[in-house]
Formats: sequence, C-alpha cells, structure tokens
Amino acid sequence: MSKKANRRGFLALGALGTLGSCAKKAEKPPSDLGPGSRAVGAPSPHEKLERIFNSPTPATGSSRTPLQSLHGVITPASLHFERHHAGVPAIDPEKHELLVHGLVERELIFSVAELKRLPSVSRVYFVECAGNSGSEWRSPAPSVQRSHGLASCSEWTGVLLKTVLEEAGLKPDARWIIAEGGDACLMARSVPVSKCLDDAMIAYAQNGEAIRPEQGYPIRLVLPGWEGNMQIKWLRRLHATPDAMHSREETSHYTDLLADGKARQFTFELDAKSVITRPSGEQQLAGKGFHEISGLAWSGRGLITKVEISTDAGKTWQAAELQEPRHAKAFTRFRLPWSWDGAEVTIQSRATDETGYVQPTREELTAARGENSLYHYNGIKVWRIDATGKVYVA
Amino acid sequence: MSKKANRRGFLALGALGTLGSCAKKAEKPPSDLGPGSRAVGAPSPHEKLERIFNSPTPATGSSRTPLQSLHGVITPASLHFERHHAGVPAIDPEKHELLVHGLVERELIFSVAELKRLPSVSRVYFVECAGNSGSEWRSPAPSVQRSHGLASCSEWTGVLLKTVLEEAGLKPDARWIIAEGGDACLMARSVPVSKCLDDAMIAYAQNGEAIRPEQGYPIRLVLPGWEGNMQIKWLRRLHATPDAMHSREETSHYTDLLADGKARQFTFELDAKSVITRPSGEQQLAGKGFHEISGLAWSGRGLITKVEISTDAGKTWQAAELQEPRHAKAFTRFRLPWSWDGAEVTIQSRATDETGYVQPTREELTAARGENSLYHYNGIKVWRIDATGKVYVA
Repeated sequence: MSKKANRRGFLALGALGTLGSCAKKAEKPPSDLGPGSRAVGAPSPHEKLERIFNSPTPATGSSRTPLQSLHGVITPASLHFERHHAGVPAIDPEKHELLVHGLVERELIFSVAELKRLPSVSRVYFVECAGNSGSEWRSPAPSVQRSHGLASCSEWTGVLLKTVLEEAGLKPDARWIIAEGGDACLMARSVPVSKCLDDAMIAYAQNGEAIRPEQGYPIRLVLPGWEGNMQIKWLRRLHATPDAMHSREETSHYTDLLADGKARQFTFELDAKSVITRPSGEQQLAGKGFHEISGLAWSGRGLITKVEISTDAGKTWQAAELQEPRHAKAFTRFRLPWSWDGAEVTIQSRATDETGYVQPTREELTAARGENSLYHYNGIKVWRIDATGKVYVA
Repeated sequence: MSKKANRRGFLALGALGTLGSCAKKAEKPPSDLGPGSRAVGAPSPHEKLERIFNSPTPATGSSRTPLQSLHGVITPASLHFERHHAGVPAIDPEKHELLVHGLVERELIFSVAELKRLPSVSRVYFVECAGNSGSEWRSPAPSVQRSHGLASCSEWTGVLLKTVLEEAGLKPDARWIIAEGGDACLMARSVPVSKCLDDAMIAYAQNGEAIRPEQGYPIRLVLPGWEGNMQIKWLRRLHATPDAMHSREETSHYTDLLADGKARQFTFELDAKSVITRPSGEQQLAGKGFHEISGLAWSGRGLITKVEISTDAGKTWQAAELQEPRHAKAFTRFRLPWSWDGAEVTIQSRATDETGYVQPTREELTAARGENSLYHYNGIKVWRIDATGKVYVA
C-alpha cells in the first residue's frame, strides 16, 4: 500500500482503486451494439447463482438459497429455498379452490379469482425451514448456503386469513385451523386460531409477481415468523376444529427431542438468529485492508433491534449498522466496516430482537436443548479466516 | 346475491365464496406427484407476464412493465422496464472498469470487485423514464402498461457515489460529474455534484441478485427520484468538470418545450404521480359488489404522504390506505375498498408528497406546461368503467 493510497479516504480503503489515466481509458473502443428490448429478462451469463438441492426421492427434498452471494434483504423468487414433502404439483389456477369448513357458520369455497378480489395486504417476511441449520447441532456446515440456506425473504401479497375466516364465521369452539395443501401427500398442519386471526395471510404473490410453483402456486399460507412447514403451500383446505391433529408432522417430525428424553412439541415461533454472509465459508478475501462484514438477522417475534459482531473470538462486540427500514419478522441486513490485518481471525454475529431475546452461542443452545434435535437451531455461527484469506467454518 | 350471502362479513363482499360442501371437496383426488427441487425457479406456465416492447431499430427502444398485473411495490427484475439508446452491451465483469477523472485530486480506476469491497447500502427506489406517460400529453393510452409502464421499483444495492468521489478527492471547481455508460453510443449525462454527494449510488445488485444486463450489468448509476436516462447504465466513466456538457440528451432530448416556445432544461426530479393499476384499462370487472381499488404512487422528492381516490368524476375524494413501511423516492402501494353498483363510473387517483406537492389534473398540467412536451407527464389518469364492467381510458 503506497503512501499516496494511505492518504486517501476516511475509511482507510487502502489500495482499492488503481491510480488511473484518462488517456488510457479514452482509447478503449465502445462495446458492440447489443440486442434490443425483450419481453422477459434473465441474468447475465456471467452470473451463475443456483440453489443447492438434494432429493432423496425425485419429489422429496430441499434446495438452499445462495445467501453468500445475495445483497439487501429481498431474495429473488427464482432462488427462494424449497422444501417439498411430495414434489411440486402442477396446478391450474382456474380450477384450484379453497374450502373453508368445520366449525364455521358457513362452509365456503373460494376460487383464486375470488380471493384476489378480497382486500389485500403486502408485507415483507422471511420464511425459514424448521430444519434450517440442522447440520449445526452436530456437524457445522462449511458454507452459509449449506448452514443457513433454508431461509429466504420476500414481499408477500395476499388476503389476511382473518378476512376469509370472518366471512365463514368461526364458531366459539373453533380453536385450531387445519391447513391442507394440494401436493400429493396433502401436507397439513394445525394452526392455533389466535395466529390465524392475527397476521396470517393467504398469499398469491411474491416480490410483485405470482407465487412460483415451488412456493405454493397459486396460493399458500404465510404465517409470519413461524416455522416454514406450517406455511402450507398449494393451500386447498382450512378445517376449523376444537383440537390440533397431532399428525406425523407434529409428533415424530418437527418436534425437538430434549436431553431428558422428553420432546418439545409445537415450536411455532422461530427464535432470533443471524449469520455473516460475507465473508463466509468457502469465500476468499482479496487481500488485507478494508472489507465490509455483512449478513442477515431475523426473528420470529418481531423486529431485530441489534446485531453485534465480534472479530476476537467473542471477547468484544461491536454494533453493526442495520438496513432501514426494518420489517418485523423479516430479514434485516447488517453491515460493519472492518480492516483485516492479514492474521488468522474468527468472525461471528449475534442478534437481539425486540423482546430482548439474545441469540445464544452453540454451547448455550446445546446446554439448554441437548444435541438430539434436528430442528430449530439458532446458535451463533463462527467463521475462521486463515492467513491466506480463505474462510472456513470455525 | 342471496340473503344468506348478504349477512356475511363486514365488507359486504357479497357473493364471493360459494357456499361449500366438505363432502364434495374431500372426494377430490390429490395432485399427481410433481417434480422435485431445482437449481433455479421459473414462473408457472399459467402466468404469462411480459414487458411490451418496441424497437425502432434492433437495438433502440423500450419495454414496459405490466403494472396492471403486479402486486406490492417490488418489480421483479425480469419485468423491470427498459430504455436503450444503443442496445444492451455484453460486458465481462472481470474486465469492466470505472474511471474517475477530471477535476479530482487522484484519478482512479476501480474494478467491479473493488467497488464491491467498498461500504455498501441497500435502498428501495423507483426508476422512471422521463418519457413515461408521454402518450398522455396528446393521446391517452388504453392500458396502464402503455401509459405508465416505463416505471419500476427495486431494492438496489451498491456503493454511495460520494464514497468513490471522496476517495478520488473532488477539486473545489468540480461542479458537475459527467457519467458515461459502456453502451455503443456511450450514453452520458451531466449530474450536479450536489446530487452525487447526496444519495446517488453506484449499484451492482437489484432485488438481491446482480443487476440484469438490460439494467446496466455490472454497474449502473442510481440517482434516486431523478429521470431514468440520467441513471447511466453500464457505468464506465465519471468525469468531474466545471460545467454541464449540454449534450444532445440535455438539449434536443429530455427538455420540455413550453407553450411560449422556450424550453425547460434539466428537469431532474420527477414530480409526484400516481395511477390506479386495478381496475385499469383493458381489464374486466368480474361483477357488481366488492372490489379493491389499488395502484402505485411515487415522487422524486421523497415520501408519498397521501393518495386520494375519486369515483365520482373528481367531485369527492377519499384517502386510500398506504402500504407501510413507505420508502422515499419509491413506489408506494395504495388501496381502497370499493363496492361497484354496476353503473358506469370513472375512477382516478391523486398523490401528494412530503413537500405538499399535489398531482395535477391533465388540464392543470397542460395549462402550466402547454402540450408540446414529450416528457415529464404526471397528470391524473382517469379510467372509465362501463356498465358491463369493462375498463377504458376516460
């Protein structure tokens, strides 16, 4: 780093930006004339962002969002994570219907077009699979796409579930709504009526356009801040009942087996969580000097109020800047300017939400919950940067 | 509408939602097992949203966003409007450079990777072509895609332009920055230094992923609230100068010829504007009863503070609900519940921004600016709904 470079800028950005020459640049010929406008755009061929997917059977499995390469808080719909229990049904929206029945004054059937005529709302929310970061319980994953890629964030548009339920008229003994999807396994979950009358949505659009097939086209349930598998995709039935169904997805699956052999059932709200996405595992720092540490934080209980970053193995913490405006129950982007001196270092982030809940370390989390679980992991993720600038899981 | 239906719901939603039967529904077979996860998603084949485009030559022209079919405030990147002066250059981001020169302490060249190392920001902003709604001056267009489709809204991520200029060090007599793009015509505009040191950005991402080629890949200028053609795409050069260049795009183009023969030059900030996107021209109401009136408002001067809707030819106005959180210099979605009685009616929206500026009627606008202009039209757009429910331009 030259003395001249050292004098530049308040951020000590160092050698970024080569000293230039107008003459050199002016000689460069302009680009060739390219194509004109087109009906639908696509990414540059130089960009190869993809979800990582694995499917134990052709129709079962999941795919993970490349969080390490994304910016801001919106996840492009084409890269939103997937988790399918029985594939992606091909649904004709003209034929799809939603039945509301059980403990209601009036059983009703809505077409998709009828749902779209109802009063609408648009809100930015994350969706996270209960199994996101499942690897971290026993074998921390080497990249943020593998450790945290089962979470994404979109602007969802639809009708509040309470609008539909008020049309049907819930009877006093209706305490749960069983929501059922139109996939081959009729994936279903029990949702407490209190959530259904709060911020739950029947969504038909995502980031401006129709929900993608793998996200529940033409309609899905959105339960802001709650585990993803409850947010039933391809929604076809809402059954008002006095009790939960205690189905497989509510007993053997999506429950947390604690150290004492008892299981925690109905973990609805997802605890506050954060992860540094850049620099993150499998990335390579270009050199010493200025780098921005950036990542994502979210909480199922509302707003993220603070994200702190440690670059000294958790001894000291600095508050990161939070991207505004923040949305409750949505990704919040955090950023911290940082200068890397070239020595081996670990970096980690810790989120606090508006309830005062602080994201635990891995040790704190396993002390409270044991190490049997597959789900609901929200411990702090630590990255190690070696002297060559290569980033590894710590 | 049956008496039974009449009793339902506070919104008088009417016949929406057929009275249902659990038994009928339960018989329906589940969907076939569909495909599993995949690396990159795509819309349902039942969704055919496209930009309308016209190109006088293969590489010149524009394409328009289908605002009538979109929801919320985010425009999907694949449907963001386009306006090209010389096609879409194919740029290798590894080879692309940005030169900063002229009245600066240090001429600098940045690679794209170097720009991405600088402190970043993400902000939601609209971009609107100066020629958006140009048709409305003389021959109002029949659909909102044709009348207002040269405007879109994204979450942009990049580095503040002032960060780059501070690294280079502007000399005291630098009053303008000439920004030049890497397309075949080297599209360039003069930008006052005050804007460059305010909220101007060099953006490299849009809605989470890399900017699309037609939006300026790998980097573009974003000048929040200012006319689109100044927000130079494929940005390659920033030249600090004492004066504006007064180029073709600043004299014969993008100026407004007034009724007295004088021309208004340098219309940077776009005036507050709104349009009802649903119901809008070429759409068809499904029937009498409840409909939501919804649309978009934006202002180059900051926040939208009010949108009013008239359904009686402008005699009376009701405040619409505004989607929160609102972003300054971004699309704001507005919504108003409405019941259509089946009679012919006109509907229109009127925006007010935080400066107190109120969107004018077409008559008020042409009285002030004449009818010679091609650009900067922001008059109120009126839709007429006939007794069959078909929507036309008024």
